[in-house]
Amino acid sequence: MAEHRLQGVAASDGVAVGPVFVHAPGKLEAERTTIPEDAVESELASFHEAVETVKKKLSETAEEMRAGGSESEAGIFEAHVEMADDPELHEGVEERVRSLESPESAVLAVGEEFAEMLASMDDEYMSARADDVRDVASQIAAELIGGGAAGLAALDVPSVILARSLAPSDTARIPKGLALGFVTAEGSKTSHVSIMARSMGIPAVVGVGEKIEEAFPASIVALDGSTGLAVADPEPDTEHDFKSRQELAEEERAALEEFKTLEGRTKDGRRIEVSANLGSAKEAADALDFGAEGVGLFRTEFLFMERDTLPTEDEQFEVYRQAVEAFGERPVIFRTLDVGGDKDLPGVDQPLEENPFLGWRGIRMCLDVPELFKPQLRALLRASAHGNLKVMFPMVADVSEIVAAKAVLEECREELRSEGAEFDEFEVGVMVETPAAAICASDLAPEVSFFSIGTNDLVQYTLAADRGNEKLEHLQSADHPAVLKLIGLTCEAAKEAGIWVGVCGEAAGEPDLIPRLVELGVTELSMSAPRIPRAKKVLSEVA
Amino acid sequence: MAEHRLQGVAASDGVAVGPVFVHAPGKLEAERTTIPEDAVESELASFHEAVETVKKKLSETAEEMRAGGSESEAGIFEAHVEMADDPELHEGVEERVRSLESPESAVLAVGEEFAEMLASMDDEYMSARADDVRDVASQIAAELIGGGAAGLAALDVPSVILARSLAPSDTARIPKGLALGFVTAEGSKTSHVSIMARSMGIPAVVGVGEKIEEAFPASIVALDGSTGLAVADPEPDTEHDFKSRQELAEEERAALEEFKTLEGRTKDGRRIEVSANLGSAKEAADALDFGAEGVGLFRTEFLFMERDTLPTEDEQFEVYRQAVEAFGERPVIFRTLDVGGDKDLPGVDQPLEENPFLGWRGIRMCLDVPELFKPQLRALLRASAHGNLKVMFPMVADVSEIVAAKAVLEECREELRSEGAEFDEFEVGVMVETPAAAICASDLAPEVSFFSIGTNDLVQYTLAADRGNEKLEHLQSADHPAVLKLIGLTCEAAKEAGIWVGVCGEAAGEPDLIPRLVELGVTELSMSAPRIPRAKKVLSEVA
Repeated sequence: MAEHRLQGVAASDGVAVGPVFVHAPGKLEAERTTIPEDAVESELASFHEAVETVKKKLSETAEEMRAGGSESEAGIFEAHVEMADDPELHEGVEERVRSLESPESAVLAVGEEFAEMLASMDDEYMSARADDVRDVASQIAAELIGGGAAGLAALDVPSVILARSLAPSDTARIPKGLALGFVTAEGSKTSHVSIMARSMGIPAVVGVGEKIEEAFPASIVALDGSTGLAVADPEPDTEHDFKSRQELAEEERAALEEFKTLEGRTKDGRRIEVSANLGSAKEAADALDFGAEGVGLFRTEFLFMERDTLPTEDEQFEVYRQAVEAFGERPVIFRTLDVGGDKDLPGVDQPLEENPFLGWRGIRMCLDVPELFKPQLRALLRASAHGNLKVMFPMVADVSEIVAAKAVLEECREELRSEGAEFDEFEVGVMVETPAAAICASDLAPEVSFFSIGTNDLVQYTLAADRGNEKLEHLQSADHPAVLKLIGLTCEAAKEAGIWVGVCGEAAGEPDLIPRLVELGVTELSMSAPRIPRAKKVLSEVA
Repeated sequence: MAEHRLQGVAASDGVAVGPVFVHAPGKLEAERTTIPEDAVESELASFHEAVETVKKKLSETAEEMRAGGSESEAGIFEAHVEMADDPELHEGVEERVRSLESPESAVLAVGEEFAEMLASMDDEYMSARADDVRDVASQIAAELIGGGAAGLAALDVPSVILARSLAPSDTARIPKGLALGFVTAEGSKTSHVSIMARSMGIPAVVGVGEKIEEAFPASIVALDGSTGLAVADPEPDTEHDFKSRQELAEEERAALEEFKTLEGRTKDGRRIEVSANLGSAKEAADALDFGAEGVGLFRTEFLFMERDTLPTEDEQFEVYRQAVEAFGERPVIFRTLDVGGDKDLPGVDQPLEENPFLGWRGIRMCLDVPELFKPQLRALLRASAHGNLKVMFPMVADVSEIVAAKAVLEECREELRSEGAEFDEFEVGVMVETPAAAICASDLAPEVSFFSIGTNDLVQYTLAADRGNEKLEHLQSADHPAVLKLIGLTCEAAKEAGIWVGVCGEAAGEPDLIPRLVELGVTELSMSAPRIPRAKKVLSEVA
């Protein structure tokens, strides 16, 4: 059989050669439609158990997404959790089960009813929701029918997965370590499957189109996620070529090992701190393994998500304390809560927003809701006695906001002082992520000890292009001249005021951009932990 | 009875003194619940007529909103039109009417069913939709019950309207000329009622709080929409004071009359063109009356909204031709289609967007969908033979976009040439509304003949604050230093390249900002037509 070459989008780096596993799910069917009368209660219990399992998986996936910086993707899974929990869905299923319908059949039917109702509403938003409801109902049904029917859960040897498309719930269902890579007909660099592949650290080639069907009968597939080429049933020469590439990639990975323990430093000896972006305290150990010299961005959102009440000051303090203790002398920069209308916060009256990325979020919300802001600042102050802690404020667009935030911080200091609680002095910084903050950096600089440039947001606001929008990939790069000018302005203002500048967006870990950032005056780079060794290597080559 | 002073938000300028009309609607009730059997067909006809009337009113309001630059408000009304047209709503009502329920009772009941279904979905977006459905159903019912029950439609002498709140459908129902002003308990400067008041040209004081109830029994109310003060049952002195203010305002208005016919010019003689922003061709006459020296922004969206197919080239040509002919020698600058995921376009597959203001819109969409872009450019080219036409492209964030847009324009020229169609050379410009466009203005300038700064969008992207978001009013001013710096950068780049700069956002008509804009180098100001005389007066005082 001749080899089939499939050219697609290079969606996630890496090379893999392995057996094919085709994920081509038909419509999920409940074979068992009725149940005996005495099974009603146990079947209802199974249904609720399946719902809980699905909710748990979805919440975990949401958390992973958020930790990986994919905020809007995380939001999708959170919405799915809510759907799985919908009382109307439950009532509908319960009623049918009591009429002796099997729960898997019932949940598919009720889900379909809901979906059709939504789809008929002649509204794009509603129609899109219809598919979400179907996806959630199928997941619950699949859970009830058992792993066998769930397709990907049947995977038992490490394989390359071929599919027309892979839904978030599909990839989430793959047993750990058994996916060598993904090749899909649909998708782009920013679609779910690509994001998942990158966060799983496996190669992916997406968007290869209809030709994927030619590859379904193949027994072996080789793919290179950095060039976007996949070859089904490769000729011996091709297979050899991919295997060499794979070895090369392996060697490279090995060569990077030594950088884990080295300090970040340019060839000419300038010290550049290479730190990790963390989404929760439990990622600290991994980050240290990869050689993080600190935490340049500790996201605190995870503490506030998926709960019925706001976290208490003590609860927050424990987490912050553990994080700074894990890093000892190394600095941990906490970003205060950066949530907007796209996430539900317990006990906060959030308006529905048409453009949540341009909404009431970050420091704007915190300044308006002291019961949110003060416990966090008090917890951070108390944690400062246990390690090298710094704090920065997100979404600042005007100097008045940083002045106001510092005033609240001072108020918390006064309170703690009068309560006799311990805390240290620490550096306070500001995220530079709105164009206004970069343009007015010289007004902000005298108020803070450091700037941390959030390139992801800075890019999306400067180019007015949502970074989650697949249609706008061409407008999503930090090396756009406008963005580089703003980074330059920020560095100049910082130099003038004698403060330091870090970068904590995607750009900080991009080999092509690192030399440029250092040249502009950045002295700290913070990134997802697996990128740290390569960043240190790139730095070591910067003259 | 002592006077009651109510201090609220200054929402719309002007002074009014007049009788009180309290709009305090209870829940709309259908008194007649059943109908005789032989009335079914005629009642169904009445229902469909009521639906059409409501749809028409909603569409008109949407169009007025869009013309007034309130794009996102217009979107609300358009969504309501869709709801009024929902086939499921119609089926539900028809079924009940056939069972001899009165249509007004049926539409309220079915609307409520839908609303409850939506509200129960445990999703903020859905809950908000529930109120929209109730509002639309009530409007249809009110239409069926007749003007009497519609409250505000009963207004018969010019009055000041007092209400806890005024919904868009309320204000839209007021007979023309009978509202002297609004005073409401709720609301902010950017809420519906304030926007409506400004577009109706009447004073409004909003957000006065619970105290409004003290004013309900009053017979006369005086209000000053520029200070936010309303006084119920004013003492003779107070009434006299308001009447003098009213006269003063009248005199001022009269004094502005002479400026309508004068050229825009600073005290020291620099020529500044003062033009109008138009949302449709039918506004041309009004704009000329107010003294528009041209059109600085002709929005073309209205041609594409509320239809089942895209407008043809010929259809567009007719509108563009009429517009340029109405203005004769004076320039009319057309902005090519600037629509995004928040508006439905017939025949264009628009993705659901989480942040439509940061989405696939304006030039981004036009470049991707030639069947949208080319007929518009061809129509504009053909219209150029009939007047002083210019064209500008919206949402440009990168020089490659303007290069690509010009290439499509050239392609259209070629086509028309080979078809023997007539067209003239005209100036091509670019909207400066993304921070990237302002920052990279020196790259864009060599490609175009003029810049037109869209301050509304420039502000919202620079400060990352949705201009429709009530919580972010403090971040919505063009005199933020970051915005002024970007305007300055744009003017410098233009001067360097020898091209001119206009401003077509709200800032262009703000008396406080005009001197600053002129100082920075702006030579054209385009605004809503009623603001033109004052702008010319302000200019005449700029040294």
